[in-house]
Amino acid sequence: MLKEHERIDQLLWGGLRIIQNPRWFCFSVDAVILARLATLEREDRVVDLGTGTGVIPLLLSAREKNIRVTGLEITPEVVDMARRSIALNNLDSKIEIRLGDLREATLLLGRGKFNLVISNPPYGRAGSGRESVCPIKAIARTELKCSLEDVIREASGLLNSHGRFALINRSSRLTDIIFLMRKYRLEPKGLRLIAPLPGKAPNLVFVEGVKDGGQELTVYPSMFIYRESGKYSEEMEKIFSGVF
Amino acid sequence: MLKEHERIDQLLWGGLRIIQNPRWFCFSVDAVILARLATLEREDRVVDLGTGTGVIPLLLSAREKNIRVTGLEITPEVVDMARRSIALNNLDSKIEIRLGDLREATLLLGRGKFNLVISNPPYGRAGSGRESVCPIKAIARTELKCSLEDVIREASGLLNSHGRFALINRSSRLTDIIFLMRKYRLEPKGLRLIAPLPGKAPNLVFVEGVKDGGQELTVYPSMFIYRESGKYSEEMEKIFSGVF
Repeated sequence: MLKEHERIDQLLWGGLRIIQNPRWFCFSVDAVILARLATLEREDRVVDLGTGTGVIPLLLSAREKNIRVTGLEITPEVVDMARRSIALNNLDSKIEIRLGDLREATLLLGRGKFNLVISNPPYGRAGSGRESVCPIKAIARTELKCSLEDVIREASGLLNSHGRFALINRSSRLTDIIFLMRKYRLEPKGLRLIAPLPGKAPNLVFVEGVKDGGQELTVYPSMFIYRESGKYSEEMEKIFSGVF
Repeated sequence: MLKEHERIDQLLWGGLRIIQNPRWFCFSVDAVILARLATLEREDRVVDLGTGTGVIPLLLSAREKNIRVTGLEITPEVVDMARRSIALNNLDSKIEIRLGDLREATLLLGRGKFNLVISNPPYGRAGSGRESVCPIKAIARTELKCSLEDVIREASGLLNSHGRFALINRSSRLTDIIFLMRKYRLEPKGLRLIAPLPGKAPNLVFVEGVKDGGQELTVYPSMFIYRESGKYSEEMEKIFSGVF
């Protein structure tokens, strides 16, 4: 079941477990926040663009038993690892991990066939000069194999009319996110800024859009990861606990 | 000096006074926040689009003595009142109130001649059915005589390259604001959400853009109008006090 350097970790909700290789990357709190904040309906057909370890499909499946999730991932070794995590949780009938390039996601998975596209894409701009020497790590962190525009364009292609798109990214990309979402008819409908602490500048943003949705954005109260004492905030503790 | 229903109010900073007609409208805390948060440099040439009572030109002049401000306003009775406020403060050599349609601001005032365009435009979408029966009030509150796109297009026309644009509006319009700013080459560079209280959803947004600026947005800590006790927040008290 495990290959070199891999380990099995508990995954917060519903007794899930996940295989990770810390030499590549481990799931982040960002993925957990995204999997919790995204609107999810009982029978959703979901695509996770750039699924990595499969953490988002696993977490979404703990929220709703009857959804079907396709996780698309470009790195073969990572696809292999994610598939073993799905099997470990006996979720093969609900979650499929596909090897493929997200720049061709609509071609690979079908136009207009999904209710929800979710993504925690690489945050770093290509050419920012901070790429990891490990190619698997570099692809996960930096926009080497897909740009934010690729993610948003393909999300729009995959979604049916009124399908939902949920994204987490750096708040410094908010202009790009909003501009591109409207450009590709994924009208932004909900936004939450996420800051490390109350009073600090937000560094992350969660955005939810609706394909062909009406033009009115709801800005929700900001979210904080920690409280002043350095402990996780009450909201984060609730998220980790898996009580929905 | 005063016409029917008018009164003279103290205007917070530097001993300024302002003439207002409460049957039309009085300046709001939004205008004060905008006038405080906008980046202002010593010799700026400024346009305030939809200046109303002239509150923003007056406040900016209290921040920097050597700026020149043109306030553009479409309602003749309001232009007349604002001009009397400027005279009351002996600022005629620094502030000019022009009667005109902001949809033609670039034509009226000159292309690329300004360093800063600022605006606290009407917030309500036209046709939302909540227009005031008073036409002067209705024009100030609802996008009857100018849309957000008109404001942003004309701001871009008026600004020189690397000139600044500063706007306050409802947070529900954030998608429109960001989309239109990039469309008209006023790249959003700074953003602050403004909420009534900590923990509440933001209802206002301050955005600052730079003409032909680089694509990187800074999101600043959110601002709160009140504190839990119902008193103004520390930051608002500091703003009102006029200590910069």
